[in-house]
Amino acid sequence: MITSLHCIPCFIHQAFKAVSRLGKDDMALEKVLRSVLAHLSTMDLSKSPPEIAEKVYAVISEHTGVADPYCNEKKIVNALAAGIAGPLMAKHAGDPDQFLTRLRMVIAANIIDFGVHDEVSGERILSSFEQCMAAELDMPVVEKLRANIASANSILYLGDNAGEIVFDKLFIEAFTTNATITYAVRGKPIINDVTMHDAQETGIDRVAQVISNGAGVPGTVLELCTPRFRRQFEQADLIISKGQGNFETLNCVDANIFFLLQVKCEVVARDLGLPLGAFVIYKPEISVQMKDAAPESAGT
Amino acid sequence: MITSLHCIPCFIHQAFKAVSRLGKDDMALEKVLRSVLAHLSTMDLSKSPPEIAEKVYAVISEHTGVADPYCNEKKIVNALAAGIAGPLMAKHAGDPDQFLTRLRMVIAANIIDFGVHDEVSGERILSSFEQCMAAELDMPVVEKLRANIASANSILYLGDNAGEIVFDKLFIEAFTTNATITYAVRGKPIINDVTMHDAQETGIDRVAQVISNGAGVPGTVLELCTPRFRRQFEQADLIISKGQGNFETLNCVDANIFFLLQVKCEVVARDLGLPLGAFVIYKPEISVQMKDAAPESAGT
Repeated sequence: MITSLHCIPCFIHQAFKAVSRLGKDDMALEKVLRSVLAHLSTMDLSKSPPEIAEKVYAVISEHTGVADPYCNEKKIVNALAAGIAGPLMAKHAGDPDQFLTRLRMVIAANIIDFGVHDEVSGERILSSFEQCMAAELDMPVVEKLRANIASANSILYLGDNAGEIVFDKLFIEAFTTNATITYAVRGKPIINDVTMHDAQETGIDRVAQVISNGAGVPGTVLELCTPRFRRQFEQADLIISKGQGNFETLNCVDANIFFLLQVKCEVVARDLGLPLGAFVIYKPEISVQMKDAAPESAGT
Repeated sequence: MITSLHCIPCFIHQAFKAVSRLGKDDMALEKVLRSVLAHLSTMDLSKSPPEIAEKVYAVISEHTGVADPYCNEKKIVNALAAGIAGPLMAKHAGDPDQFLTRLRMVIAANIIDFGVHDEVSGERILSSFEQCMAAELDMPVVEKLRANIASANSILYLGDNAGEIVFDKLFIEAFTTNATITYAVRGKPIINDVTMHDAQETGIDRVAQVISNGAGVPGTVLELCTPRFRRQFEQADLIISKGQGNFETLNCVDANIFFLLQVKCEVVARDLGLPLGAFVIYKPEISVQMKDAAPESAGT
């Protein structure tokens, strides 16, 4: 997905939030904002929004000297998510279809996004869960995902945000499969996206091999990832992609990708033809058709 | 009031809206936004928000070749306001205190602001009236304004927006005074601010002398106004200032100014210590004290 002009106000809003929460003074904020504005005035709009966002956060880090502005928030939200997960799992222990229940949980957990929300409280997360439990999902695609998981030899699961990762683990635990499961994290801290640190902190390394994609983009731009990650991506029978950032960077890539996300901005809403706030399981038709018609075609 | 960093997203949003409603294509929008971003990256924050806004709209006009992007909207909203005014006046014809009723109307009408709102419908205007009729105003200041109007020799009324001007006229008609009343409009088209054209279109020239301030700022920056306007400003016993733009540019000027406005952004809300949406009649205390203590002091 290329960057929309409508993304510009959002980038500026994100810069504001990131610098403000560092407790920096107005002088620092002014310097950062001037640099971000200058950067945006010459940006390459053919890049995806997460690629532009990476540059925006690089400007923030450069001016504030803070490489990981959401470091504390990630720890806190991992703990918060773990706290929410226990009672929620107990409440839904009797659900007959645990795969579906946990799929709904994992899509709902995509609400935990500091790039979009100013504040992610326990109440907001719980409210997202309630809504997603009652939401209409595309059930044929849910069943297609279940079947793909069952028949896959290798699954690559692209993580998105801290906190959310707790529910990624619970979802993976509900898979009925003999596949090798690999969970990918970002290579460098960016917003509240998962890194190797979060994978270890939340114990997802106990249910999946964990791999860094090597990049600092809040999405997955293959040409910026390590050769090891790219090999894994090309060889996986099934890719499960979490969140908007991965969707924005992979929606035109020809691979067997299922996107799980919550629609959190107008630009993605327009692209998907869905309303803001929609809970989504999405398998691009073009990719399915290409796979069905020519299963030997490995990628773009 | 100097410009806050929090004004930046608003400027960008305004540029978006103004260009989009001209029906220009994405290429034109991109050019405008890049120029606006570059301009904002080097802006002088010691200027007031309306002064920065003037430059933003100058960039828009330069790139689109349209000097008055809200030309049609101003005509339409003048007609809409006239349509609303008739039934509203009939409904309130029996109100015992017409000055107070029309004061409430004229503050409510400040909702008509294309710099802030994407769309100003009849429903939104009527809802603003209903709220303002029930709102708590600072009654001692209302009575002070009434007394000032009664005793003044010359009143300068600073207009703000098209549409709103219809209610400015009705308010002026309810003045009990022998004063000379002068109604000031902007010198050039800027957003949906009133110009001489709106004064003639709405017939306010039948209840007041109309003067152009000579400037194209959506506010009143004295040093950018004509000598004739500045003389009028200095000689007026009483100044009635409508709207946020005039407030943002005159709130630190020592003169006998009563501000009538609706709080439409967080920056002004913070400055006034009032919530968003508040209906305001405001007389800065410092100015009152200075006037009371030293009535011979004419200005800053």
